[in-house]
Amino acid sequence: MPESITLYSAKICPYAQRVEIALAEAKAQFKRYEIDLQNKPEWYAPKVNPASKVPAIAYGGPDVPPDQPSPESVKIAESLVLVEFVADLFPESGILPKDPVTRAKARFFIEGVSSKLIPAWYAYFLRNAPVEDFYNALKYVQSLLPEEGFAVGEFSIADIAIAPFLARTRVSLLNEIGKYPEGDGKKVWAHITSGDFARIAKYSEDLFARESFKATFDEAYVTEAFKKRFAGVRNQ
Amino acid sequence: MPESITLYSAKICPYAQRVEIALAEAKAQFKRYEIDLQNKPEWYAPKVNPASKVPAIAYGGPDVPPDQPSPESVKIAESLVLVEFVADLFPESGILPKDPVTRAKARFFIEGVSSKLIPAWYAYFLRNAPVEDFYNALKYVQSLLPEEGFAVGEFSIADIAIAPFLARTRVSLLNEIGKYPEGDGKKVWAHITSGDFARIAKYSEDLFARESFKATFDEAYVTEAFKKRFAGVRNQ
Repeated sequence: MPESITLYSAKICPYAQRVEIALAEAKAQFKRYEIDLQNKPEWYAPKVNPASKVPAIAYGGPDVPPDQPSPESVKIAESLVLVEFVADLFPESGILPKDPVTRAKARFFIEGVSSKLIPAWYAYFLRNAPVEDFYNALKYVQSLLPEEGFAVGEFSIADIAIAPFLARTRVSLLNEIGKYPEGDGKKVWAHITSGDFARIAKYSEDLFARESFKATFDEAYVTEAFKKRFAGVRNQ
Repeated sequence: MPESITLYSAKICPYAQRVEIALAEAKAQFKRYEIDLQNKPEWYAPKVNPASKVPAIAYGGPDVPPDQPSPESVKIAESLVLVEFVADLFPESGILPKDPVTRAKARFFIEGVSSKLIPAWYAYFLRNAPVEDFYNALKYVQSLLPEEGFAVGEFSIADIAIAPFLARTRVSLLNEIGKYPEGDGKKVWAHITSGDFARIAKYSEDLFARESFKATFDEAYVTEAFKKRFAGVRNQ
């Protein structure tokens, strides 16, 4: 029986949403505390996460309000560490494949998301790097997908790792938020949801339709937050 | 009962040594094939690892010579994925902590090695970046260590992830191999093995004394290979 879980999260943050999806899949009981990333509480870094990032979990210890973290709880950070932690605490969630080979495939998929897709997306989004690099990274990820279903068949940690990023890619492009020229966003989105990208388009639809995704993604909020946060990026 | 394992490795490569240590801890039976990284066999990328890197494992399938890989075996790449794969195949190896919190701490340690220590080391080693950045990364890793023992107490995947890099740091510095000014190597090594770095110095000693490390690290070979491979880097 897992001990108490307090999740420090932020609706805007794709890394934090990973852990929220994992907890939703596990049907875990937990306290959620929203951290304002533009104005973090002063107790957050010293008492929860020295790196001052979300997500973080306070695990166990006495029953305290989230804004008064106890030194007796264990503090754990890093989204992928936390997704595996949730999978370990709640094996019945099924998000960690039981078969070692399938599990390795899920982790290999995550490695591709981390080392290729996310950097290529941020390079395009925030620095207007050539969109071809983003397309290539997306094609690489697509090449890892089976003909149908999720990344390794059943829904798993692999899908949890990518879904929040694809969702924010969609929000950014459809709303023309980013460093790339205004008007390109919708064209890029149209390009990556048809033709050569039909498989990853279908996969994205499947991810976005998952209950655990829908329950943890507030599209209207993220859209407004992105507009505010990245308003100036095009003219910098 | 795990199926047959063929490891494609290279003695010089720290990533590959991670998997060799894991297999040694597991006392696993496997075939080992040395890949010459400067002259890779033409079959390696198409038949084993499209990224053309080591380590990679061919798992299962018919009993074939390593240089004639079967399409029927599963090919898996990426050192950290493979270390976890070995831990999953051989739970009795004990390299994956059983307790979810300890396991999360091991993975958090690995994340620090991947995102902080390795980049800072390569920046100093290959680009003569300020040595202070390397010291800071090493101090960060040191700050994660308990007062004694391995990274999370018992020997684990965390120690497997760092040991090959610390060993090659030692070889590089003691032999003045790298982009930094000649003569600085031995001074840097002396600095990081005493005083403020006493804890990580002791930890390194413990790692280098581990049987699975000694059995998979050929110091004379790595020294010569480093001298040859990085001979020109100082004058580039």
